[in-house]
This record gives sequence, C-alpha cells and structure tokens, in this order.
Amino acid sequence: MSELKNDLFLRACKRLPVERTPIWIMRQAGRYLPEYRAVREKADFITMCHTPELAAEVTIQPVKIIGVDAAIIFSDILVIPEAMGMKFDMIESRGPVFHHPLRNEEDGKQLKRIDPGKDLKYVLDAISLTKRELNGSVPLIGFSGSPWTLFTYMVEGKGSKNFSYIKKLIFNNPKLAHKVLDLLSDAVADYLSAKIEAGVNAVQIFDTWGGILSQNDFEEFSLYYISKVISKIKRNNEPIIVFSKGVHFKLDKIAASGADVIGLDWTMDLGEARKKIGGKVALQGNLDPTVLYAKPDKIKEETIKILNSFGAGSGHIFNLGHGILPDVDPENAKYLVQFVKEESKVFHKIDAKK
Amino acid sequence: MSELKNDLFLRACKRLPVERTPIWIMRQAGRYLPEYRAVREKADFITMCHTPELAAEVTIQPVKIIGVDAAIIFSDILVIPEAMGMKFDMIESRGPVFHHPLRNEEDGKQLKRIDPGKDLKYVLDAISLTKRELNGSVPLIGFSGSPWTLFTYMVEGKGSKNFSYIKKLIFNNPKLAHKVLDLLSDAVADYLSAKIEAGVNAVQIFDTWGGILSQNDFEEFSLYYISKVISKIKRNNEPIIVFSKGVHFKLDKIAASGADVIGLDWTMDLGEARKKIGGKVALQGNLDPTVLYAKPDKIKEETIKILNSFGAGSGHIFNLGHGILPDVDPENAKYLVQFVKEESKVFHKIDAKK
Repeated sequence: MSELKNDLFLRACKRLPVERTPIWIMRQAGRYLPEYRAVREKADFITMCHTPELAAEVTIQPVKIIGVDAAIIFSDILVIPEAMGMKFDMIESRGPVFHHPLRNEEDGKQLKRIDPGKDLKYVLDAISLTKRELNGSVPLIGFSGSPWTLFTYMVEGKGSKNFSYIKKLIFNNPKLAHKVLDLLSDAVADYLSAKIEAGVNAVQIFDTWGGILSQNDFEEFSLYYISKVISKIKRNNEPIIVFSKGVHFKLDKIAASGADVIGLDWTMDLGEARKKIGGKVALQGNLDPTVLYAKPDKIKEETIKILNSFGAGSGHIFNLGHGILPDVDPENAKYLVQFVKEESKVFHKIDAKK
Repeated sequence: MSELKNDLFLRACKRLPVERTPIWIMRQAGRYLPEYRAVREKADFITMCHTPELAAEVTIQPVKIIGVDAAIIFSDILVIPEAMGMKFDMIESRGPVFHHPLRNEEDGKQLKRIDPGKDLKYVLDAISLTKRELNGSVPLIGFSGSPWTLFTYMVEGKGSKNFSYIKKLIFNNPKLAHKVLDLLSDAVADYLSAKIEAGVNAVQIFDTWGGILSQNDFEEFSLYYISKVISKIKRNNEPIIVFSKGVHFKLDKIAASGADVIGLDWTMDLGEARKKIGGKVALQGNLDPTVLYAKPDKIKEETIKILNSFGAGSGHIFNLGHGILPDVDPENAKYLVQFVKEESKVFHKIDAKK
C-alpha cells in the first residue's frame, strides 16, 4: 500500500499538528453530483452497492471533483441486515423497505451470523479497488451503522415518524432487544475489522437513531453496544469516529467509548463540546447542511463561525452536521472545501506559535 | 367565572406550593380516545376546529375520562395562517398541505393582518363554551404555534424532512423572513391575548420546529420572536408556557424570554434543567411518549425516574415530552395520570417539612 500523500484527516483524528483543518462531507458520494447521477442511471442503488467497480467509481468522484481530504467508501448501512437474511427494497423517495421486519423472538432466531469475508466480500473488493485507484492521494474511510441504528431499521422495517415498533419492543421485550443488539455488535465489529484489513484508514459508526432515545435508554440500548463494538474492532492505529445524531447529552460518556473522534450535528456548539471533551477526542462537524443552499458570502460567514468556535489547534475535522442534501449545487460544496482549506491555515499557525 | 376547584396546574406554573404534582398530556384531546374518534367520524378535522360545540366536546373528554389537571382547547396551530389567507387541507396520515406555500415577496404581501375577535371568533366561542361546561373543575389552556413554527409550515407547505424551502428563504432572503416573522408575532400575541380575554387560564407556545435550527439561527429566527410575543400578550396573571421541541441548548436564554414555564422533550434531563433554570421558571414534561406503549410496571418505573429527577418541591408540571401517540391504549394514559397523582404527594410532603 502506497504511503498517503495527504494524511491531514488522519492526523487531525489523532489530534496531531496539521497545517490546516481537513474536510470531508457526509454523503459526499451522492445524488448532488451529476457524475454520480450518471452512474446511478445505469444501475439501481443496491446494484451500485453490490458492484465494486461502480462503488469505487462514485467513491472517488468527490475527491476529484470537490477536493475533499478523505474518501468514504460508497455503500449502505443496511448491507449487514441484508447479509443476515433480511431482504429489503430501496424505494425512491421513501428509502429502504424490509420485506419482513423483525418483530418477535421467531424473527430474531432467523438472523444468520455473518462472515464478512464471504457475505460482504463485495464491499471488501470495492475497498481494495478504491485503494488502488486512490493511489495514496487521500485516506479511505469505512463505515457501519451502530447496532442500535441497524436494529431500529430492522424492527421498523421502513421510515418512521414515531418509532412505535422499536419502542414497543425495547419496553416490552428488552431481553430480545439485547439478544439481537449483541448479535449485531459482533457483526458490526467483524465487518469493520474486515474493512480495516481490506485497507480502510479509519472507520465511522453512524448512530443515526441514537437521538430518539431518552438519556437512560441511549446508554442502555445504543452507547453500550457502540463501546462493545469499539473494544472488539481489530485495528492498528486506524481512528474510530462515532456520530450519534441528535444526541446532545452524555457527551462525556460517548467520549469515553474508546472512539478517537466524535461527530457533532449542527445543533451542537462546537466550542462548548471542545471544552467538555476536546482533551480526550477529536471533533468532527458541524455546519448546518442547509447552509449549502445559501450564496457564497453566507457559506463563508457560517464556515468562519465554525472555525472560530473550535479555535486554534488540531483535533477538528470539518464536516457538515449531517449528510449533504441531494439538491445542493456542487459549486457550493466546492466553494466550502476550498474556503476551509484556505481559511483554516491561520488557526494552525496560531497553534504553531504557542 | 366560577373559581377553580383544582388550581394545582396554575400554582405549579408559578412555583407555588402544591399538595401533589399536576399532570396534563400534550394532544390529550386526540385520536387515542375512542370518544374522540366517535366525534371525528361525524366531522373532518378542520370542521371540528371551526365548530365550537365539537371543539368543546373533545376538549372536555380527557378531563372526564383520563382525569388530567388541566384542559387544553382543541384547535390547530394553523388557524392563524388560515385566517391570514393561506388555505390548507388536512390530509389523513400526511398532515396539512397548503394550496399555495409562501415562497417570495409577492406571497408575503398577500398575507392579511388578522383581527382575532372576527377572524378567529370560532376559537374564542369554543373557549367560552368550554369554560361554561368545565364549570371551574380544572383550568383551561389556550395555545398557538410560535412565529417560527407557523412560518416554517407556511413556507414548506407540507411535511418536510430536510426543510429545504424554509432554510433557503432564511439564508437567501432574511429580510423577507424577518418581515413575515414580525407580522406573525403580532398575530400570535393578539390571538393569545384574545384567548385570555375569552377565559383561558394559561397559554402555551408550541415551537415545534425550533430544533431544526443551529444555535445562532434559533436565537435570531425563533427565540427573538417568542420573546416579542410574550412581551406583547395582554394578561393578568395567566402563565405562559414555551415548548421548543428539540432545543436542548440556550435553556438559560429561553428561561429569560419572559415565559413562566419551559416545556422539555424526553431527551432532556429534567433534574439538570432544574439546576440550570429552575430558580427562574417552572418545568413541564418530560416522559418519552412511547413509554405509554409499555406495561404498567414499566410506565411506573419511568414515571418514578421523572419525579425523582425533578425532586422535591413545586415548579413541576408532569407531561409527556411530546404529544400522546394515536395508537396508545387509553388505559395506559389513565394509569399514568393516577400514578402521578398518588406517587407525587411524597415530593411535596418533603417540601412542606423543610
């Protein structure tokens, strides 16, 4: 494996000195790019996930087009439930719909233990291929849903507003919930370990649905299993990022999960979060994704606020506070990336002077 | 107007001593009650809002059936935009859909200034009728959406996931946004003043969409106008409750808005919030609404956690952290109300002993 030409992202994850703040964008390989839509016209979403050549192609697009400091392998968090035997369709504008959601003990018993080397070989192949094509230009990130987030999708079966099914299940059958979450923790840890073995330089755990839980329930049903996954991942020095969307509480406990980096959504105050946990972990985020709908001057103004909020020194990876939206103008994403690259230098010069 | 037989809710709003913690439930006049569904079969949702007899009937139902300590007038926050000239349909399972959403200067100019005494007379009539029928049994609450929340509905036009239209508008045309928010602030203040004149004993401002904003934007586009409304409401001693869903930040500033009570969603820690702002305002909430899907033992366990979290003394109004869900068993709501009434006594005995 060639050495990395740009390792700013990895250094920032470890809070090592950097010349400027690195930036990547959640969902950067996505529908806002005409080049992505061109690939997507030839194959449906699931086929794209299953085909290493297509996954590699769209993974690399934002590195070339937008100029981000890291690539993230194109895939979907639901490849794990799928490999466990739960089939789903991806329906345009509605999202994933499982054929048979998990609702009871019997459904739980049907879940297969997965062997990522076999069952998710297509993801590992996409990683190897992408690494070759990136040729050391930037690091490659692998990802998974958190056990709780995967479990929520598996139980709800489709998009939800009130999350009735998953809440009924955890309140009325916590034993089944913990059994499946345990199984999922093994699957996620094995999957992320295999990704690291296949060559990713960092991994991110997306806890998209952590924020639907009360504080106690978050600790019991989400954070406990995130920590379990982290403790089981086989890695050398690859950083682990945890992004629990909507989880504004228990930051100190999330920072104690073993993660190297904590992702923050746009409702959080980056500076306050740094004060609380910045001595233990790096922080990633957190521009409101809808700011990319604005004109360059406003994007600039809001970006400066984020950079100022974190302040001088390493330990910040610039990102949006959630995925980039499909109707954003790619020019605005380019502008953001260029502006962060230029404007952030001063925060690291100050650091060097100290 | 007869004196109130049960004024626990009003005393708790003012942090005056109470014998037990009062409880009411957001959306308590709603679909989970078979008695409500029976009325709803005879008339559609908007007709129910427009017909004082029907609104009064469903407003009183939860007082009689569930035993709550306050009634809240049955209505919808969108009666204000409707009175301003923006027509909408209420579509089952999709929510409100405006015929012509507000998107530009021209749309803004079409908005009428409202005179609640004329344009929303049917709400005021429903209040007078309900007051007569309640006959002083419990206080009656009136409500409105916050200017920001009404504006969000008017611009998006229907349910939204990413809130693209409203965000584009505030970032690219903040002048228009502030103009309409100003107009809405007058309308909301006049409307709530008229409700108080018609007899409601307290008012709640629902800031349902405050939580989609970053911290700075929340202050600029939502909180500023909430404070403005509060300063303009004509009242004697009627308490004002502010419920900004998803707004976990700026609690101190929300508490300084002039509100008497701050509502908390279920992701907040009630005890921590009390430490921060409990010296200035009362707190309302915050049981996870989905806990009412659970068996009585679990409801009991979670309710005790909430009561313990607030601790001894007045200044707490028990409620859910969001509206009651339509598929909850009414028996569970009854159980919760009875349990809070009984179990909370001890927290006020301790207070009396001090």
